[in-house]
Amino acid sequence: MIIILKPGVTPEQVDTVIQRVESLGLQAHLSQGTHRTIIGVIGDESKLAAEPMTAIPGVAEVVPVLPPYKLASRDAHPNNSVVDVAGVKIGGGHLAMIAGPCAVEDAQRMDEIAGAVKSAGANIYRGGAFKPRTSPYSFQGKGEDGLKILRDVGDRHGMPIVTEVMDPGRVELVAQYADMLQIGARNMQNFVLLTEVGKSNKPVLLKRGMSATVQDLLMSAEYILSQGNANVVLCERGVKGFDPSTRNLYDVAAVAVVQQLSHLPIIVDPSHATGRPDLIPACALAGVAVGADGVHIEVHNCPSEAKSDGPQALLPEQYAEVSEQIRQLAQLLNKQISPLPGA
Amino acid sequence: MIIILKPGVTPEQVDTVIQRVESLGLQAHLSQGTHRTIIGVIGDESKLAAEPMTAIPGVAEVVPVLPPYKLASRDAHPNNSVVDVAGVKIGGGHLAMIAGPCAVEDAQRMDEIAGAVKSAGANIYRGGAFKPRTSPYSFQGKGEDGLKILRDVGDRHGMPIVTEVMDPGRVELVAQYADMLQIGARNMQNFVLLTEVGKSNKPVLLKRGMSATVQDLLMSAEYILSQGNANVVLCERGVKGFDPSTRNLYDVAAVAVVQQLSHLPIIVDPSHATGRPDLIPACALAGVAVGADGVHIEVHNCPSEAKSDGPQALLPEQYAEVSEQIRQLAQLLNKQISPLPGA
Amino acid sequence: MIIILKPGVTPEQVDTVIQRVESLGLQAHLSQGTHRTIIGVIGDESKLAAEPMTAIPGVAEVVPVLPPYKLASRDAHPNNSVVDVAGVKIGGGHLAMIAGPCAVEDAQRMDEIAGAVKSAGANIYRGGAFKPRTSPYSFQGKGEDGLKILRDVGDRHGMPIVTEVMDPGRVELVAQYADMLQIGARNMQNFVLLTEVGKSNKPVLLKRGMSATVQDLLMSAEYILSQGNANVVLCERGVKGFDPSTRNLYDVAAVAVVQQLSHLPIIVDPSHATGRPDLIPACALAGVAVGADGVHIEVHNCPSEAKSDGPQALLPEQYAEVSEQIRQLAQLLNKQISPLPGA
Amino acid sequence: MIIILKPGVTPEQVDTVIQRVESLGLQAHLSQGTHRTIIGVIGDESKLAAEPMTAIPGVAEVVPVLPPYKLASRDAHPNNSVVDVAGVKIGGGHLAMIAGPCAVEDAQRMDEIAGAVKSAGANIYRGGAFKPRTSPYSFQGKGEDGLKILRDVGDRHGMPIVTEVMDPGRVELVAQYADMLQIGARNMQNFVLLTEVGKSNKPVLLKRGMSATVQDLLMSAEYILSQGNANVVLCERGVKGFDPSTRNLYDVAAVAVVQQLSHLPIIVDPSHATGRPDLIPACALAGVAVGADGVHIEVHNCPSEAKSDGPQALLPEQYAEVSEQIRQLAQLLNKQISPLPGA
Repeated sequence: MIIILKPGVTPEQVDTVIQRVESLGLQAHLSQGTHRTIIGVIGDESKLAAEPMTAIPGVAEVVPVLPPYKLASRDAHPNNSVVDVAGVKIGGGHLAMIAGPCAVEDAQRMDEIAGAVKSAGANIYRGGAFKPRTSPYSFQGKGEDGLKILRDVGDRHGMPIVTEVMDPGRVELVAQYADMLQIGARNMQNFVLLTEVGKSNKPVLLKRGMSATVQDLLMSAEYILSQGNANVVLCERGVKGFDPSTRNLYDVAAVAVVQQLSHLPIIVDPSHATGRPDLIPACALAGVAVGADGVHIEVHNCPSEAKSDGPQALLPEQYAEVSEQIRQLAQLLNKQISPLPGA
Repeated sequence: MIIILKPGVTPEQVDTVIQRVESLGLQAHLSQGTHRTIIGVIGDESKLAAEPMTAIPGVAEVVPVLPPYKLASRDAHPNNSVVDVAGVKIGGGHLAMIAGPCAVEDAQRMDEIAGAVKSAGANIYRGGAFKPRTSPYSFQGKGEDGLKILRDVGDRHGMPIVTEVMDPGRVELVAQYADMLQIGARNMQNFVLLTEVGKSNKPVLLKRGMSATVQDLLMSAEYILSQGNANVVLCERGVKGFDPSTRNLYDVAAVAVVQQLSHLPIIVDPSHATGRPDLIPACALAGVAVGADGVHIEVHNCPSEAKSDGPQALLPEQYAEVSEQIRQLAQLLNKQISPLPGA
Repeated sequence: MIIILKPGVTPEQVDTVIQRVESLGLQAHLSQGTHRTIIGVIGDESKLAAEPMTAIPGVAEVVPVLPPYKLASRDAHPNNSVVDVAGVKIGGGHLAMIAGPCAVEDAQRMDEIAGAVKSAGANIYRGGAFKPRTSPYSFQGKGEDGLKILRDVGDRHGMPIVTEVMDPGRVELVAQYADMLQIGARNMQNFVLLTEVGKSNKPVLLKRGMSATVQDLLMSAEYILSQGNANVVLCERGVKGFDPSTRNLYDVAAVAVVQQLSHLPIIVDPSHATGRPDLIPACALAGVAVGADGVHIEVHNCPSEAKSDGPQALLPEQYAEVSEQIRQLAQLLNKQISPLPGA
Repeated sequence: MIIILKPGVTPEQVDTVIQRVESLGLQAHLSQGTHRTIIGVIGDESKLAAEPMTAIPGVAEVVPVLPPYKLASRDAHPNNSVVDVAGVKIGGGHLAMIAGPCAVEDAQRMDEIAGAVKSAGANIYRGGAFKPRTSPYSFQGKGEDGLKILRDVGDRHGMPIVTEVMDPGRVELVAQYADMLQIGARNMQNFVLLTEVGKSNKPVLLKRGMSATVQDLLMSAEYILSQGNANVVLCERGVKGFDPSTRNLYDVAAVAVVQQLSHLPIIVDPSHATGRPDLIPACALAGVAVGADGVHIEVHNCPSEAKSDGPQALLPEQYAEVSEQIRQLAQLLNKQISPLPGA
C-alpha cells in the first residue's frame, strides 16, 4: 500500500501517519519528492485496508498494491479450479452448456424442453422457481412446486439442475432440490444471501451485477468462499450500458480479466447480456472464443407462450445449431463440452 | 401500447397478433403505413404487458404508453405525499435532515455525535447496525447491540432514528428499534426484502441502485406500496459513472424526474454520491435547489477513527455550516426544515 | 412514425397536430385509446423527423419506426458490401488484418515492423503520422514526413497502408499518401471531417466514438456515404465503461447489431478496446467469432521504446501467434484472411 | 510518480527500470515490501509521463502523483480566473446568463428572441450558424449569413454573442463576428480545432464531451491555454448515461470537482444536459447552487417552429421566471449576474 500525502503536508502530519502505520505492526518507508511525499507501507496490507487513512489530515490518497480478495485470487490457487455439478465438470477445459426456460412452467412443457436441449447438447438444465421480477404484478415463479418439477425432470433426463435462490431463508429448501444454486445479478451484493449459500455445500453460479466491476464480482465470490464453499462458478451476463440496441452491454473482456486474476471458472450468458435471440448465437461463440468455461442460454419450445422472458429465448433447433458451433470451436481451443454423467 | 410490426409481415401474422390482443379483452386498431404496419391497443395495457408479444413472429417492437407502476404514480395520487417519521415530516415542503455516522459505534461516541448533529440542525439520526460491506473481512456492524445503542441515543436526544435492514428475516427485529427502515442501494432490487418491509408498518427509505433507472426505482417502490405500506421515501445517492473523480455520479435531474412521475418524497445523499467531504456541501445545496425533500449526510466527530467510511464523513462543525445554508435556501424555495417533534 | 399524445390532450390540440402532419403531405391515422390517444403517421417519415413535433402542446412523445440512416441501411443494400483497399478486400467473408505501431517512427524501425507483421499474417499496415493526443505536451506525430515513411515502407513490402486524418484541411494531403483514411474515435462526430473524407475517393476506416450508440455510428457513416464515398469500413474499439480493469469496454455485440442493420463491413480493435496486451489475443478471437470482418492490432518490436501507446502493443511474435489462431477460426467460419495483392 | 513492480520481478528488471528513470535525470527511490517492490520517482514527473514505462518487463503499474495539466491547474493560478466577454464578466462571483435559440434563424425572429431574453435577464446571446447535426439530412445552419444576423442583432441589443465553430479552417471567419467561440461537446477532443481557437484572441466556451472525465476536459482546456489563449470558460452539459428519462446525465458534482482542480470558470447547460424543458428550471438552480459561474439555456419564442432542438427550448416567459430565481439564489451565495456593458 502506498500513501500519497498532500502538497504542503506538515512534518507533524507526516509523523501522525507514520505512527498510525507503525501502530498496526507495519513498516513505513518515507520517500520525499520534489512535489510530493509518499509513504510505502511494508507488511500485511489488509491491516491497513481496514483503516480510514484518507481521513487523516495531510493524506491525499491511498493506493492498494494487492487485491482485497484472497481465496478467489490466482495467487492463492495458481491452477484453474474445476467445479463439479453432480458429475458435470466446469473449468479447466471443461465447458458447461446450461440451457432451459427462464421460469419453470408446467411439468409436461419442462419435460419437452429438457429432452430438446439435452439432445441439442446441453449438460445442465435450468429454470427459475423463484423469479426476481421488476414488477410486483408479474409472474413470480411457481415456488417449491417449481423446484419439484425441475428435480423430477432433471432426474428423468439425467441432467443436473440449476435454479435461482433469492431468499436467505430458503437456501436450505432450494438446496434440497437443486444441484447448483444460482445467485442472480440483482443479488450479487446481497451479502446475507451470499453468506447463506457459502454455508451450503452446493456449487454456486454467481452472476455479475449490472454495475459490478470485476473486483466487485470477485469480492462477492470471496464472501461465498470465506464461508467454506469453494465451488463457485462466475457468470458474465452484461453490464449496464447506454446503447438501447442491446438490453445490457456484453463485456467479454471481463472473462479474460477474471481468468488473469482468479482461478474460478467463469461462463457467459448471452441471453441476458443481449436480450435478443438474433444476437445470441454470435455472442455465445464470442464468449467461448474469449475463453469462457461455459455458456448459459435460455431455450423455450414456444417463446410466445413463455411465462417469463419469452422474447429472448432460442428455439431448441436454434440452440442445437449454436451448440454444434460451440462444439467445433471448443475443439479448436483444445477444450470440450463436459459429457453428462454416465454418458 | 403500440405494437410495431416488422417490414414484410404477412397478413396471417398480422391476424395472429390481432387475435392475441383480442383474446385478452382488448381492442386492436390497425394502421397500415407505407413502410410499416402498426397496431394500437385500446384497453387495459397491463394485461398486454405480461405477454411475450415480441416473441410472436412478425412483431418488431412493443411500445408501452403507460408506466408499469400504479401506486407510485402521480396519476394515482396527484398531490405530494408527506411521510411522517415519528413526528418528523418528509415531503410537501418539509425537509428531512438525516445525519449521523456510517456505522453505529460505541454508546458514548454515538451520544456525542447525536448531540452535535442535533444542535447543527439534523432532525433524523442515522447509523448502521448491519452493514453491507464489499469485503467479508471488513467490520460488518454491531448487529442488535447497535440497534439498542441507536434507540437509546435517539430517545435521549428526542430524534427519530433510521437504520438499514439487509436481511428479510430480520425486518421484524429492526422494526422493533427503528423509526424508519433503510433499504440500501445494493438491495434496491432485493424483491424478497422489499416485500418484507412492505408488510411492516414502518416508513421506508429506499435508496436508488447504482444502475437503476428512475423507472426501476419506482417499480421497487411499487413492491413496497403494493404490500400496503404507503410510507416510502426515495433517495438519490449516485449512479455508476466512468469518472473516477467522484465515487458515483450524482444524478440531481433524477430528483426532478421522480417528482414529475410520482407523488413520493425523494431526498438526496451527497455523501455516497460523491464519496468526498470537500464536495458534499456544494452537492447538498444542489440537491435542495433541484427540489429534493431532504438531505442525508454522514457526520462523524473523528473520521480518522470511524469504523466505516470515515474518509467521506463531515465533521459536526462542517455539517452545521451546510445545514445553515440549506435552511436559507429552503426559505428561498418556500420550504422548511421539519422541526423535531416537541420542538 | 407514431405520435403519442399527453393524457388530457384537448380536441383542439389534436387538430393542431393532425394539421401539422397533413401540411407535410403525410396522412394522420388517429387511434383514441382508453388512457391515451396516438396518431400513426403514414408517408415519408423523414419529413416528419425534421420537425420539432414534441414542442407542440399536447404531444408527449414521437416514436420513429424507420432508422434515420438510409444509404448505410441494409434495406438499401441487402448484400454485404465488400470494400477494396488497394487490392485487399474487407467484408463478405474477407478478413482485414490491420497491424503496425501506434505512431509512425523512424524509417528503419517502420521497415522492421512492417516485415515482421507481414510475415506474421497482416495484410494492411498502419501507423499514425498525425496523432490525437490527450495532452498538448505529448508527441503529436511526424506529420507529412511520417506519411512519406509509411508510403515508402508500404510500397517496399507490398502492403496497403492506413493512417489517421484529423484535420479537414489535410484530407487531400493524407489521401495522396494513404490507401485508406482513418477517422479516430474522438472525431467520429466531427461532421466537417466526415464530409471531407466523404468527398475523397479513398476507403475510410471509421472508428466508433466512446459514447456513440450503433445508430450514432451508422449516422456518421451516412455522412460519408451521402457525399458519394461508398467505401466505409466501421470499427468497434470499445466504449466508455465504469470498470478500470480495461481501458474501454469492448462491445462485441455491437458488431452483430451493425451486421443486422447495415451492409457495411465492421472490424474490431482489441488494442484500444482493452489497452492491455495480455487481453488482446483472447479479445481478437472473440471479435472474429462474433462475426467481425477483420482485426486491428497495434504491434511494435520494442514497446518500451515506442513513441506512443507502447504499453498496449503486441510483440511481432505474439501477433504471429494470434494471427494463426484467427486464421483457423476464420476457416471454421467459412471465411478467410484476405491475401495481399499479388500474393 | 510511483512505479509498482510485478510480484516476482527479478533484480535485473529492477535495475533496468532504475536505469531508465535515472537516464531522464530523475531519482529513483526503491521500497522493497513483503509482497511488492515499488519505486518512488523524484524530480520532474512530466518527463516520465511521456515514457512507456509499463511496457518495461516487470512493471505492473505507474501511478501519477501530479495532474497532467499545468496552465489549467489551480496550482498554477490559485485565484479564480475571470473571463471578460466584450464587457460581460464570467467567474469570480460574476454569473453568465447565456440564452438564445439553438440555431440562428431569420433576422426578425432573432431580433424578437434577443429582446425577450435580454429583458428576461440574459447577458450573452447565443445561436448556431454552423450546426453539428447527427444526420447529414438535417438543417446544418445558415453559415456566414447566420453569423451576420447574430452580430447585427447582438449589436442592436448591446449583447455580446457566442456561437459555435466546428471547422478549424473557419475559426478566423467566426472570430470576425463572434465575441466568444463555442467548442461543442462532440469536438471537445478535436485537437486541431482546439489548437486553432487557442491561437485566436477570443474567449472560448469549451463544452465537456459526453464521455469526458473532468481530467479530459481540463486537458482539452490545456490545449487552448498552451497556445496562449487564457480566456477559457468550461461548460458541464451532461455526460452519457443509461437512463432514457433524460437526454444526458447532468453531472453537477463535476462543477465542484473542476473548481477544486482549476481556476477556470465553469458554467452549466441544463438544456442539453436534460433535453427536457420541464426539468431545465430546477436543474439550472442546482447548477448555480453547486457553484457554477453561469447558466446556458436555449430559449425560443415558438419552439414548435424552431429549426433545431425546438422541443428542448424554454419560452421567454419561462426563462424570465428561472432567471429571477437564479438572481435570488446568486444573492444568497454572494454572487451576482454580470450586468451588460453600459448597463
